[in-house]
Amino acid sequence: MTRRVAVVGVGYTKFGEHWERSLRDLSTEAGALALADSKLDGKDIQALYVGNMSAGRFIGQGHLGALAAEYAGLLPIPATRFEAACASSAVAFKNACIAIQSGKYDVIMAAGAEKMTDLMGTDAIATLMGAGDQEWEASVGLTFAGLYALIARRHMAVYGTTREQMAMVSVNNHKNGVLNERAQFRYEITVEQVLKSAMISDPLTLLDCSPITDGAAAVILVSEEIARKLDNPIWVLSTSQATDTLALHNRASLTGLNATRVAARKTYQETGLSSRDIDVAEVHDCFSINEIIALEDLGFCEKGQGGKFVEDGKISRDSEIPVNTTGGLKSVGHPVGATGIRQLADLTNQLRGRCGPMQVTGANTGLALNIGGSGATAVVSMLANGDAKPKR
Amino acid sequence: MTRRVAVVGVGYTKFGEHWERSLRDLSTEAGALALADSKLDGKDIQALYVGNMSAGRFIGQGHLGALAAEYAGLLPIPATRFEAACASSAVAFKNACIAIQSGKYDVIMAAGAEKMTDLMGTDAIATLMGAGDQEWEASVGLTFAGLYALIARRHMAVYGTTREQMAMVSVNNHKNGVLNERAQFRYEITVEQVLKSAMISDPLTLLDCSPITDGAAAVILVSEEIARKLDNPIWVLSTSQATDTLALHNRASLTGLNATRVAARKTYQETGLSSRDIDVAEVHDCFSINEIIALEDLGFCEKGQGGKFVEDGKISRDSEIPVNTTGGLKSVGHPVGATGIRQLADLTNQLRGRCGPMQVTGANTGLALNIGGSGATAVVSMLANGDAKPKR
Repeated sequence: MTRRVAVVGVGYTKFGEHWERSLRDLSTEAGALALADSKLDGKDIQALYVGNMSAGRFIGQGHLGALAAEYAGLLPIPATRFEAACASSAVAFKNACIAIQSGKYDVIMAAGAEKMTDLMGTDAIATLMGAGDQEWEASVGLTFAGLYALIARRHMAVYGTTREQMAMVSVNNHKNGVLNERAQFRYEITVEQVLKSAMISDPLTLLDCSPITDGAAAVILVSEEIARKLDNPIWVLSTSQATDTLALHNRASLTGLNATRVAARKTYQETGLSSRDIDVAEVHDCFSINEIIALEDLGFCEKGQGGKFVEDGKISRDSEIPVNTTGGLKSVGHPVGATGIRQLADLTNQLRGRCGPMQVTGANTGLALNIGGSGATAVVSMLANGDAKPKR
Repeated sequence: MTRRVAVVGVGYTKFGEHWERSLRDLSTEAGALALADSKLDGKDIQALYVGNMSAGRFIGQGHLGALAAEYAGLLPIPATRFEAACASSAVAFKNACIAIQSGKYDVIMAAGAEKMTDLMGTDAIATLMGAGDQEWEASVGLTFAGLYALIARRHMAVYGTTREQMAMVSVNNHKNGVLNERAQFRYEITVEQVLKSAMISDPLTLLDCSPITDGAAAVILVSEEIARKLDNPIWVLSTSQATDTLALHNRASLTGLNATRVAARKTYQETGLSSRDIDVAEVHDCFSINEIIALEDLGFCEKGQGGKFVEDGKISRDSEIPVNTTGGLKSVGHPVGATGIRQLADLTNQLRGRCGPMQVTGANTGLALNIGGSGATAVVSMLANGDAKPKR
């Protein structure tokens, strides 16, 4: 990266069911939180990058960039919406980093927002299938739980991954989320409860699935020059994006996500670091199986060993690679367009040492993986609180 | 701009009602046309930037970046969708320019696509209102024709702009579009026909309004180093974006678009050029009144004189500032997410001298204005076939 970029402010709303609040309320609150956290002024913001998956269907509203800029009092700065399904806001983040690297801007607010509860349940499910292939998947009745159920069944068949191992992902993330005041679900669950919860799409039960959520998140990104004047900047070492087929049937294998592997490889190349150098990770657990696959695709464990890795307790807060230390999508909630930035906000706080009871001791280098759809988009970002060096 | 960016290939599909073709067919064709035009290979493309306004509602499909990349055979490169209502693809173009300037990529395909005819008429109208304010405008029954009718009435009241002058915008653009093989409507119309066509929203009649259209457009953007090896690169001198309130009632005035003025000022500042240096312009004539206002906001004439400027014949192909020389949104058609790139494709061909019977003699410097919604987003881009210098 030619010009260094840093995160200097983060914020997100309480995630959950906000019946009394609109998308504009939520996005404005998240922006204000991030701005206050950065110690910068609204006048310093030169551009607004907003991730949103489907406000056009959830609330009938497009043109989200302008909407958010107006209500945040940021007019007339450029304001743009980015969409890559559930990876929408990581893509906004990536493009904001590029814009600062280019020299075009020095201070950008990158945000993500989604208001999902205004639609009835089945309409929300149909809207979410916009992230998959309408012609080849939605048209034959597939839902997103269905897509990931196919992936889960295949992973079980090829590698012997068990239902219990998947359940342990949800158990870990709920355990972490208890400590997160902004999480949607703040209670612990057991493997037995996961297995006995309502079947959604065999083998995935309700507690394998991230919820329908309203929420917004924002970060403030600045150039190196400005970052040096502010407290505890967190550096963006790399942010890489890759793409795969929209429909599952066009892929050579269902047991991994090629977009994740391509993006991770690029990130490791760009930084000279490897998975062994990561102290804390946010990974996309939209469904429990996806966290297991992410652990493999990111190189935290061997291919096929993700289930065992979880079962061996290696993702807990004080273990080998603390994953989703604030609750993940499962417990914090998954307002689809906001998740990517929420992950980066929590990762930033881990690297700043500001996570209170959720803090991972000695977290200097962190990684976030945000996935769109069933893996047609993957964005891998690596952040650090200084100059990250390979550990061995 | 630190690192120069050039357009080296352009293409767009026939615009119109493509009942037999899908969004993926159209976007793939546009990309292939632009790539062939550039003499580059698909393997050279490092990222895909796609503008689309509302495929989520028009065809139930989100995740347009991945969709387009897959069908174009471009996997696994990063692929992102940009949305800013009808300015979606100009925003994609702008971000692609920034990405090349940053050094992250050297070759990007920037595209735009929209498939609008799959929805019934009133559903399409409702979908388009996603570009305005759902809570404050759509909820009380306003349509986009209604929003621009309010703007037109105010412009008439304040400046004495006449119905006939507005009609002349459509007459000019249809006259130009006759020569464009890819235009949706290839016939001349008269002022009398415009005035007598069906009333849509007083004072705007059917022939003041751009149509519902299917279509896709693409351009290939490259770094200076690569551009130097290719034929006749067209340089991006500047691309600027600004934002205004989503709803009309929050604006100080209805007779101009502040976002256009802010973006234009920035473009003129960045280039050291003024409106007098522009040889050819593409401006956003979604409704006839908008072209009149654009002429004023871009500085081609004094505020309030846009109607007279058109009446005096100053926008025709051989006049002071040839505008919408290939037909504009009115005659070429307005597949909302594709329009911004279509404008830039036609502008590029004018600056290359490749417009055949539509060619403007001696066109060296050109400007495009793409507007989102009722002016909440404006993107002004200036291109040139060499080093543009002020004319006087």
